[in-house]
Amino acid sequence: MRIFIAPLAAALLSSTALAAPPPATGYGIIEGLTTEVGQRLAGTEAEARARDWAVAHLKALGFANVHVEPFDMPVWVRGAETAEVVAPFPQKLVLAALGNSGATPEAGITAEIVGFPSLEALKAAPDAAVKGKIVFVWHRMLATQDGSSYGTYGAIRFSGAAIASKKGAAAMLIRSIGTDHHRVAHTGVTDWGDGVKPIPAAALTVPDAEQLERILARGKSVTLHLTLTPHMTGTHQSGNVIAEVPGTDPSAGIVLIGGHLDSWDLGTGAIDDAAGVAITTTAAKSILDGPRGKRTIRLVWFGAEEPGGFGGLAYAKAHGGEKHALAAEADFGGDKVWGFRASLALPKSPLRDDLTARLNLIGVEPRPGAAHGGTDVGPMVVKGTPVIDLEQDGTRYFEIHHTADDTLDKIDPVQLAQAIEAWSIMLRTVVDSDDPLAPLPPRQEQE
Amino acid sequence: MRIFIAPLAAALLSSTALAAPPPATGYGIIEGLTTEVGQRLAGTEAEARARDWAVAHLKALGFANVHVEPFDMPVWVRGAETAEVVAPFPQKLVLAALGNSGATPEAGITAEIVGFPSLEALKAAPDAAVKGKIVFVWHRMLATQDGSSYGTYGAIRFSGAAIASKKGAAAMLIRSIGTDHHRVAHTGVTDWGDGVKPIPAAALTVPDAEQLERILARGKSVTLHLTLTPHMTGTHQSGNVIAEVPGTDPSAGIVLIGGHLDSWDLGTGAIDDAAGVAITTTAAKSILDGPRGKRTIRLVWFGAEEPGGFGGLAYAKAHGGEKHALAAEADFGGDKVWGFRASLALPKSPLRDDLTARLNLIGVEPRPGAAHGGTDVGPMVVKGTPVIDLEQDGTRYFEIHHTADDTLDKIDPVQLAQAIEAWSIMLRTVVDSDDPLAPLPPRQEQE
Repeated sequence: MRIFIAPLAAALLSSTALAAPPPATGYGIIEGLTTEVGQRLAGTEAEARARDWAVAHLKALGFANVHVEPFDMPVWVRGAETAEVVAPFPQKLVLAALGNSGATPEAGITAEIVGFPSLEALKAAPDAAVKGKIVFVWHRMLATQDGSSYGTYGAIRFSGAAIASKKGAAAMLIRSIGTDHHRVAHTGVTDWGDGVKPIPAAALTVPDAEQLERILARGKSVTLHLTLTPHMTGTHQSGNVIAEVPGTDPSAGIVLIGGHLDSWDLGTGAIDDAAGVAITTTAAKSILDGPRGKRTIRLVWFGAEEPGGFGGLAYAKAHGGEKHALAAEADFGGDKVWGFRASLALPKSPLRDDLTARLNLIGVEPRPGAAHGGTDVGPMVVKGTPVIDLEQDGTRYFEIHHTADDTLDKIDPVQLAQAIEAWSIMLRTVVDSDDPLAPLPPRQEQE
Repeated sequence: MRIFIAPLAAALLSSTALAAPPPATGYGIIEGLTTEVGQRLAGTEAEARARDWAVAHLKALGFANVHVEPFDMPVWVRGAETAEVVAPFPQKLVLAALGNSGATPEAGITAEIVGFPSLEALKAAPDAAVKGKIVFVWHRMLATQDGSSYGTYGAIRFSGAAIASKKGAAAMLIRSIGTDHHRVAHTGVTDWGDGVKPIPAAALTVPDAEQLERILARGKSVTLHLTLTPHMTGTHQSGNVIAEVPGTDPSAGIVLIGGHLDSWDLGTGAIDDAAGVAITTTAAKSILDGPRGKRTIRLVWFGAEEPGGFGGLAYAKAHGGEKHALAAEADFGGDKVWGFRASLALPKSPLRDDLTARLNLIGVEPRPGAAHGGTDVGPMVVKGTPVIDLEQDGTRYFEIHHTADDTLDKIDPVQLAQAIEAWSIMLRTVVDSDDPLAPLPPRQEQE
């Protein structure tokens, strides 16, 4: 094991002679953003304050070309949300509306619950079994290092409500797509598709979902009173905050990196995704403070990722015609990097060999399969931009993801420093690499 | 290490020939009570439903003399509860009113925060520093096996609001008396003493308290908008549910055991205190199903423990004149028993030696110091009733205590079985012991 001094620690050690403290990097960015702004729901004044915070901070860190690129987006906001079992065992349940959820009347609705153990079981049910009822879908999501269980179960949240609506359901409740056992619900968008009537849709906390499952298992008819009053507030402004580390060779292509500035409204967005902007910014700062690289790094704190990737789409629309050498995104928390994948045009790229050799020094190994980026750089990846994924440990991620529990205390500074080191190594390797980083064929869709 | 078959497991194994499932014991009691009743706030219809559940269940288990002894008590209920930082960093905070909290107007109050790192610091502050402000007291409570940190920090919740009120504070916020890092607040009673004006009083979740502490550390004036609308609903009925295992010698004195049936309103009271009633009931059932003991066991599912120990006081008032050989209470969750203390009149009691020998077989060791019982048997202990404490592991207890997170999933069936085994051994030893179990001198107060 190599002992390393993270860029953050090095910056702090070298700053003792300064009169004023340097602008924070690493953990300090997460601490500052989550404390001084808090939640940053896309398209709201809180996200606008976060952009102001970002611009001031990135300028203070010495980045070039710091600016905001605004765009418009539809904004959904949470209302009241309560649920109570009326019969057979009266009691309140804790839940949170899903993004884009429809609303009940102010006084709520009362209906019978029909439960399904999986999305497949709901799909297979006849409309008559669902019509006029509150659908409840549970599951058995477990924690995985690579986050793959989110792929397996996420469809319940993303697609389930539309399926229930088409069958005539009065409302949709899901077991939170999460691996914890706390009374905090996991929100996230649900998608209606074209022409599907939005119905009230919410996630019960895992303990509440298990409670409802036990109540249903008693075999009696279960009636629920549900009140959800979210609403669409119309079109509002969001924006991407952009900063650069200029390279020596403008023709070598841009290295696009970043995370997202917006968060869901329940927590303060520490792991999702202040961590991502902190990791990418601190790694970019290590290049800014070191020898100039050949390629320019373009760091983006994307807006409006959570409600539908609006920031990534706006970036690709504005900059898709520019030459991009590489894209990489950090949007999987603040824990350690354990693997990497690179999708590059050259079958035997020297970049891949260099990354393998250098990242191995801090325990990061190459993994089979294609890199994908994420929601923010996805639109550029689809166009054929080469992409590297630095894979972070997701074992804890879905305990916290999209909940009120996404707060600063969930950040492990030791693991965060390792992730920053991995990103710093990757960036240094990429900006100077002899691989021409030619584009790949466009992908049919974001995989 | 001895391998043991818990009474629960033994009961299940022996029940396979029955046509209908036997009434649940052990984990099944916790599962049933938390699922079929849920929260059981003292003096409410939910607690009344819990008493009905208890009577039916205890009768089905075959206990003798199953009945309810009602009593009246004042009932406080939660209202709306919201808090938001108005300046310098606008954001919502998550909190829960403390039992007996006063109320703000419906529209809430807006005031400056004054923070203190401890109750001692608040006590030392001049009135002028507090008057008209919202007091915020934080602390550094850590988890301990014996729960001793609750003793250290619990006074902030119990006494802090009255101290703040006397100094003219507009309201009192505390960091939750808990050791977790989740956005669930820890409620519990606060005491006003005589003639002190109740002010709004609430606990911030630990992450929210740390957030407010960080905001205050920026050195700017911090303004909060606070709405709390709890109220006293008047006098309502609670009750103790009583069941017995008759002994062969009525003159040998009653062995009083139990836990409390009521819970706070936020969780379903799995660890506090369905676990306690399950442990004591299942241990008593092992005596009921075994050879008759000399002493009668009186099992009490106490009502209204949380808001002020009303059930324990009502029991002592009704039964204080009867001969009690021993009192013991389970009100510290469902985790394993690791030590015991016994306060007995005989300096060299054979009971102590027998308990030491038998409990040691399952890893439970004697500990120095006096036994105290708890809130429910406390009024009998003060009168001089001998008392045994079976000490459960409290390391996890204050992660969950008095929160919405007190739900069934927090019960570890393996540790619960060990606690039931320890209680079964203790009861068998006590009911047949040759120690006359004479009363001790009355205690000056509940220690």
